[in-house]
Amino acid sequence: MTSIKLVKEVMSSPTRCSPVSRVVIFGGTHGNEMSGVTLAKHWLKDPSELHRKTFMAEPCLANPLAVEKCVRYIDRDLNRCFSHEVLSSPESESDPYEVKRARELNQIYGSHLFDFVFDLHNTTSNMGATLLRCSNDDILSMHLANYLQSSSGNQSMPCYNYIIDIPKKDSIYLQNIGKHSLCLEVGPQPQGVIRADALSSMRELVNCGLDFIDLFNQGKEFPSFETDMYRVLSRVDYPRDSTGDISAFVHNGLQDKDYVPLKPGDPIFTTINGEDLLYDGETVVYPTFINEAAYYEKKVAFILTEKVSWKVPALKLEILGDHLGYSK
Amino acid sequence: MTSIKLVKEVMSSPTRCSPVSRVVIFGGTHGNEMSGVTLAKHWLKDPSELHRKTFMAEPCLANPLAVEKCVRYIDRDLNRCFSHEVLSSPESESDPYEVKRARELNQIYGSHLFDFVFDLHNTTSNMGATLLRCSNDDILSMHLANYLQSSSGNQSMPCYNYIIDIPKKDSIYLQNIGKHSLCLEVGPQPQGVIRADALSSMRELVNCGLDFIDLFNQGKEFPSFETDMYRVLSRVDYPRDSTGDISAFVHNGLQDKDYVPLKPGDPIFTTINGEDLLYDGETVVYPTFINEAAYYEKKVAFILTEKVSWKVPALKLEILGDHLGYSK
Repeated sequence: MTSIKLVKEVMSSPTRCSPVSRVVIFGGTHGNEMSGVTLAKHWLKDPSELHRKTFMAEPCLANPLAVEKCVRYIDRDLNRCFSHEVLSSPESESDPYEVKRARELNQIYGSHLFDFVFDLHNTTSNMGATLLRCSNDDILSMHLANYLQSSSGNQSMPCYNYIIDIPKKDSIYLQNIGKHSLCLEVGPQPQGVIRADALSSMRELVNCGLDFIDLFNQGKEFPSFETDMYRVLSRVDYPRDSTGDISAFVHNGLQDKDYVPLKPGDPIFTTINGEDLLYDGETVVYPTFINEAAYYEKKVAFILTEKVSWKVPALKLEILGDHLGYSK
Repeated sequence: MTSIKLVKEVMSSPTRCSPVSRVVIFGGTHGNEMSGVTLAKHWLKDPSELHRKTFMAEPCLANPLAVEKCVRYIDRDLNRCFSHEVLSSPESESDPYEVKRARELNQIYGSHLFDFVFDLHNTTSNMGATLLRCSNDDILSMHLANYLQSSSGNQSMPCYNYIIDIPKKDSIYLQNIGKHSLCLEVGPQPQGVIRADALSSMRELVNCGLDFIDLFNQGKEFPSFETDMYRVLSRVDYPRDSTGDISAFVHNGLQDKDYVPLKPGDPIFTTINGEDLLYDGETVVYPTFINEAAYYEKKVAFILTEKVSWKVPALKLEILGDHLGYSK
């Protein structure tokens, strides 16, 4: 019991973070996810929208060759190339294009230089505006996500907190090269298509995120809060026949129902002969990334999450020469 | 006036067609349009669904290499490779993959051997079930389309008659290698995704089409009818800046509004700075293939059509030794 009490005490004192002065916004990490591609291209021509009082965010087209060909990637999924192993292995001319590019991006935008990484993605799934993070250690990005959700009254799309929850040392994602980070997933949007609604939602989210960072840098304190988040439990593959071919498809009743509770016994797949396959889990879960085009090759039909409540401590700026709050 | 009268008389006598005994159903003409890919693969394993009393349709995966890679095409859009020029030009080892495949398909399934060609496609646009033909000379396929529309009460998707109306000699499409043909476009569905609703709609349409052919072969007469169809007027490109980059996107008010009347002054594009661009035509038109992913590279934002009413003469089977009806 003592340790739990201690945690609560630590949680109740504000977390202090140093100013966020260098911010990068990646678009086109996947070359056919067009909201980020379009925004990054626009901001590279005219970055005025990214200026704030306390900093100026930099746009970057993460995978320019994939953008040019309007494909997800050339040799390998760039957003799976940021493992410690890949980044620290010796360079070779024969490395896949995305491995070379991952090292390059890490050198230019890594946490030794950049404080905050936004990574802009689209999904073909009905995921609304999903605020995706890889851990609950990054208090600043949790406050940023909360700020986006609080401001989402202006947005046309619902806004969800999403957590993959993997140790930073095991991360393979671009966003983790930053000290703080947030990945935005906006959908549904087909690959290769620019939908005006998805574009404006993503743009609003980014601008709102930059506003938050600016307020934080100016010393605004953000109180503690409790929030719901969807935490990844497991990935579910399509049923397959003996040759490995997909033998059943996402059920009509599940299609487009991302974040809608899935109960034991609900249909999840339907075979080509019209047979329904039911969810045989024992608890209510929340399916996400349902029928995402890019996940067929990853053998993922959807990703199950649980809805958890999370208490986030208050946040304030660490003043130069000041220490992290715990010992005060 | 005399010629119009004559046309009317000709129109009122039934058109006679010889039996339709060889039918091919192409899926995967574009390798990432998954309804046709999935159905063709299924029917190649188990063709029993394609049997009718008077014939047995053959499934064919039109572009197997593109299907394997889940891309639209390898070297060149297969569904633009069926021009007389390409099909009759001398073969060369260096020909693009799809040019070789087009010649091969024409040799195996051309009109010297096959009576009816179905070609199965998906679109990312909100086109429902679109019954696409390249001319109004093919009375049999017009009756087939009418039969599908009459039976569409069972279908979950609206069903539209679509006509490109180009002389057969200028055709570049796969469907035109058949004596009779119909292309099915079902959407919206993102590339690389199998949606159960699109799959079952397409399957129902094909089965219903085979039923029609079977009834026709058995001697059933089909009375004349009048029908609405959407005839292609023009293709509209995205606005572009001086470097050729797209500078405005399909307007929210137009997105997903395929087949909905577009009036002069209606917004069609929106720039990244939020400026609306309006339709400056003088008549009401019907936009189609709005924001189709595959048409970005073809510089087509949408295709304008007009709605026309068309009178189709009655259809009956030409009995062996019988002549075409006109002189009787």
